[in-house]
Amino acid sequence: MHQWAKELFPICRSLTGDGVRETLSYIQKFVPELEVHSVPSGSMVFDWQVPQEWKISEAYILAPDGTKIIDYKDHNLHVLNYSTAVNEIMPLKELQQHLYSLPEQPDAIPYVTSYYAPRWGFCLTQNQRDSLKSGNYKVVIDSEHFDGELNYGEYYLPGESDEEVLISTYICHPSMANNELSGPVVTMALIQQLQQWKGRKYSYRFVFVPETIGAIAFLSQRLKEIKHRIIAGYVLTCIGDERNHSYLQSRMENTLSDRAAMHMFDYFAPNYCLYDYLSRGSDERQYCAPGVDLPIGSIMRTRYGDYPEYHTSLDDLNLVTASGLSGGLESVYKAIQLIEANAYYCVTVLCEPQLGKRGLYPTLSSMSLDYTDVRTLTNFITYCDGKHDLIAIAEKIKVNALELLPTLNRLLKEGLLVKVEENNVEIE
Amino acid sequence: MHQWAKELFPICRSLTGDGVRETLSYIQKFVPELEVHSVPSGSMVFDWQVPQEWKISEAYILAPDGTKIIDYKDHNLHVLNYSTAVNEIMPLKELQQHLYSLPEQPDAIPYVTSYYAPRWGFCLTQNQRDSLKSGNYKVVIDSEHFDGELNYGEYYLPGESDEEVLISTYICHPSMANNELSGPVVTMALIQQLQQWKGRKYSYRFVFVPETIGAIAFLSQRLKEIKHRIIAGYVLTCIGDERNHSYLQSRMENTLSDRAAMHMFDYFAPNYCLYDYLSRGSDERQYCAPGVDLPIGSIMRTRYGDYPEYHTSLDDLNLVTASGLSGGLESVYKAIQLIEANAYYCVTVLCEPQLGKRGLYPTLSSMSLDYTDVRTLTNFITYCDGKHDLIAIAEKIKVNALELLPTLNRLLKEGLLVKVEENNVEIE
Amino acid sequence: MHQWAKELFPICRSLTGDGVRETLSYIQKFVPELEVHSVPSGSMVFDWQVPQEWKISEAYILAPDGTKIIDYKDHNLHVLNYSTAVNEIMPLKELQQHLYSLPEQPDAIPYVTSYYAPRWGFCLTQNQRDSLKSGNYKVVIDSEHFDGELNYGEYYLPGESDEEVLISTYICHPSMANNELSGPVVTMALIQQLQQWKGRKYSYRFVFVPETIGAIAFLSQRLKEIKHRIIAGYVLTCIGDERNHSYLQSRMENTLSDRAAMHMFDYFAPNYCLYDYLSRGSDERQYCAPGVDLPIGSIMRTRYGDYPEYHTSLDDLNLVTASGLSGGLESVYKAIQLIEANAYYCVTVLCEPQLGKRGLYPTLSSMSLDYTDVRTLTNFITYCDGKHDLIAIAEKIKVNALELLPTLNRLLKEGLLVKVEENNVEIE
Repeated sequence: MHQWAKELFPICRSLTGDGVRETLSYIQKFVPELEVHSVPSGSMVFDWQVPQEWKISEAYILAPDGTKIIDYKDHNLHVLNYSTAVNEIMPLKELQQHLYSLPEQPDAIPYVTSYYAPRWGFCLTQNQRDSLKSGNYKVVIDSEHFDGELNYGEYYLPGESDEEVLISTYICHPSMANNELSGPVVTMALIQQLQQWKGRKYSYRFVFVPETIGAIAFLSQRLKEIKHRIIAGYVLTCIGDERNHSYLQSRMENTLSDRAAMHMFDYFAPNYCLYDYLSRGSDERQYCAPGVDLPIGSIMRTRYGDYPEYHTSLDDLNLVTASGLSGGLESVYKAIQLIEANAYYCVTVLCEPQLGKRGLYPTLSSMSLDYTDVRTLTNFITYCDGKHDLIAIAEKIKVNALELLPTLNRLLKEGLLVKVEENNVEIE
Repeated sequence: MHQWAKELFPICRSLTGDGVRETLSYIQKFVPELEVHSVPSGSMVFDWQVPQEWKISEAYILAPDGTKIIDYKDHNLHVLNYSTAVNEIMPLKELQQHLYSLPEQPDAIPYVTSYYAPRWGFCLTQNQRDSLKSGNYKVVIDSEHFDGELNYGEYYLPGESDEEVLISTYICHPSMANNELSGPVVTMALIQQLQQWKGRKYSYRFVFVPETIGAIAFLSQRLKEIKHRIIAGYVLTCIGDERNHSYLQSRMENTLSDRAAMHMFDYFAPNYCLYDYLSRGSDERQYCAPGVDLPIGSIMRTRYGDYPEYHTSLDDLNLVTASGLSGGLESVYKAIQLIEANAYYCVTVLCEPQLGKRGLYPTLSSMSLDYTDVRTLTNFITYCDGKHDLIAIAEKIKVNALELLPTLNRLLKEGLLVKVEENNVEIE
Repeated sequence: MHQWAKELFPICRSLTGDGVRETLSYIQKFVPELEVHSVPSGSMVFDWQVPQEWKISEAYILAPDGTKIIDYKDHNLHVLNYSTAVNEIMPLKELQQHLYSLPEQPDAIPYVTSYYAPRWGFCLTQNQRDSLKSGNYKVVIDSEHFDGELNYGEYYLPGESDEEVLISTYICHPSMANNELSGPVVTMALIQQLQQWKGRKYSYRFVFVPETIGAIAFLSQRLKEIKHRIIAGYVLTCIGDERNHSYLQSRMENTLSDRAAMHMFDYFAPNYCLYDYLSRGSDERQYCAPGVDLPIGSIMRTRYGDYPEYHTSLDDLNLVTASGLSGGLESVYKAIQLIEANAYYCVTVLCEPQLGKRGLYPTLSSMSLDYTDVRTLTNFITYCDGKHDLIAIAEKIKVNALELLPTLNRLLKEGLLVKVEENNVEIE
């Protein structure tokens, strides 16, 4: 994953344009089935209009002495994303109106965008800015905005059931590692894992979209078709650093996505940060909007806005590590395992089953034995009443639901349990 | 308001009689539409019988040396309220059986009543009582009980809707300021404010009743007619001192009245005292009784029983101040504003609306901007799902609902929100 | 009760056999109506098979020097319960494989069973065991397993209603006092108390069963018949020591049994231990199993497993005392009183009733009076709305429901309250 991130890092992405398409092409090398969709500039998608494409060839500043002091080819954050063109000579004072830097992080180039109002500008470190001397600067941004299309990628991986899990990540930020590439590369690895999982119940839909407008465009095309099939899902973002794990709840707060992720993290990373929906900031804003109402939370390592490198050039491949990415992937995969396993089960006999004759209970009754495992087993069985689903039982009996899976499978095989629809239970 | 209270202070009110009528006449000077109703003595009102009228002309005690030591004309608390007549000479020892004072508040004349058992008596300060010397005292109470009527005032202020808010206050206590006059004068001022509010939705019913029996008489005459129209309301009492603000919940605990008052106080007076219904003590006892079931709480400054001057001559116009009264009025008015504004709203577009094109969102995306207001705005919109009413949204997003009103009106005007019936929502 | 326990103590009970029958016969002396049921060995009862009878005549160990060092006639815990027969001479080393003792309680003989796998063995104190010298030991257990029957006792005490309360206790442990005899003797005393209670509403079913298999056998014979008639009930076990009181909730957690016991203990023994169903360990495991779903909790003094003498010879009649037993009985009886009294009540008049004319309210209104009782009375009445049952009202108004009973009866007599079906209320 880290290698993929390295290769994707230099591409200058924006909401639209070549950067997005180049990124999608790269992903197709590993997920050939990925379909690339396009929506023409100017199309209305719900309340929004698809913006023009942005194409940038050059962006630099020449100092009064003619040296090139800022060049977007050094770092594509140097140019205000979606900047209009400019080719002028101007005094420093006037140039300052178009410069963006962070006084409190003097070594970081900030990430600034102006998607919905025409502006030109450069981003630079505060240190660079402070070293500028008065005089006339030549500023060149050779960019174009023109009618073209907005692109997003979609991959549908069918399962036994039509019900599906939606995984969404974004591909519109230029060279940033955690708040951009961690999402797509973890999603790519997840796709490979799920492709190999035999006996998966659910279908999976993976979307790689420009944030906000891309998610809105995707929903405007697919919502009617998929709305009632999506039973859970996550936005994956900022999922590659090593600092912590985080979960941001869906607007509905108690969906299967929320329950699975929160239960999983309680055991996988008990100190994880739990955010409510008021802390939202990525495409769950669209998926959970009123009337859309999809059960989508966000699985992250350190949440956007909660780490100092966020939206700067310091959000790079030192911050995002192989280990950070694989921890992120593992958390997503475990949440999905839980979603797959979660169901209502019901014991098939009245009263406690006789576990001894099945080799599941010690034959000697004595205070000196350790009954922990058998206790977990009987606790599990006693809440298999068709009214508690697997996660609810695990929370009730205070164990990790994923660790119940071998027991669950053994009991299903013994015929002591059956899967049921909720409350649709008739024992004996 | 303080002036009104001053003028009403000397009137000797009781459950029935001239004091009540004089008080209602005074109110009619400012609220000419106030109707005065009468219920004949002896009428059954639910489980109660309307008592006779009480008329008092004189009440005094002459000391053994002939000086008038107690005279109800000095302070109408001096006579046991609803006292029977007496005209006797008796030794101090016998007189003591008929005297009421407060050893722990030696300067206060207590307020004592005997409405439902015939008794005569005088109330005086402990200091006065301690100074009485043995000897024969002449005691005179020239009072009558006779069949007459019980009176209460009612004013109905129509609004756009037949649904109404009930405001109830009482007019049966003699010269006490917080635990009597604060309620009627705040109600009078509230009437004037609501009369001037254009575009009010609800109708308002104001009742000025003798406590308990008056509220019961009112309900026995009006309950059937108004029961299903009353959507909220408050008893106003003890609402004129400067010590604190208080709210006492209705029996049902989670009515619109309760939610509006509690949310309002959380911002208006965060240290306010919240009482549950077990602490009740005024006419909410009738309004919330089983089968009556009106959603009525009580808005107060310092609750009856919780201030040392309560039910004594010290509950006077030093305790109740202009500022205390206007703070009380303000709290009631704000609660009513919230009741008026509270409704279910639903966003009219799927996904987030594009706020930028409406000038509601900054066009530049940068970490350096302050997004607090825009965050409140998007938080507000995202819970406008037809399932949360305004108060619920405000609590969810942790802001003062009253401060959301300009935003709400702007969004309604932009067509981004519509008012809906709960859960009756179809977006796009 | 302590005397009964003394007489029952020496009987060598097991799951099946003479010990159980002898115990039931003893109980019949005091409860002649007790029916003794039998289920043949080998019968399937739900998922279980009724085991063979176990008959034991002799069990002892002769030391190498011929002295009898262990004899089950000294204490019937000395033999592994349900032990197979043996008659051998063997070296100490081999014998050790069949000895059970408790290193941490060197003076206690442990209670060990092997019901569902054939084994022979002896239990002894650690001190005894440590004193064994090497050499050849003669071990004799003269026991038989043969097809016979499993027995349990059942007594049905009819009431006004077909609805019934189930009381279950067990009779399969040999000489142990708290974790065996306290249950049956408290049940016997409870039967005598309930037989004398005139005007009881509910019927009562008392069962004396071998733990687990006996409860399962009973349910396999009776469940269909009684399932919808049982409205509450308790397992009585470990209910004779003086250390504490305990309640273990039913699986459904909020049944009438749970609410009555927990409310009762909040006043009767506020420091009682409350256990959730995860701490279960006796026949509530069967009664509360999914599909059985009976509302059965456990009333105890110190719970099994929570006292050091548990399942050893130290669980004797010093631990269980007359005072411990009668405290246990009292708690059960009070819980039952509450179950009997619990119902929905509704006030018959609108607004507050006039209590004064019924002598229930002071005629003088003064700050100096103590209104606690009248406050409890009015609080009680105001929640008699047909939506709160007696226990719910008591919890709402923070008083002991049992102390409300005289008030309740007085109000019923005054006609101010009527018993109603929940929510089926029409006042006036």
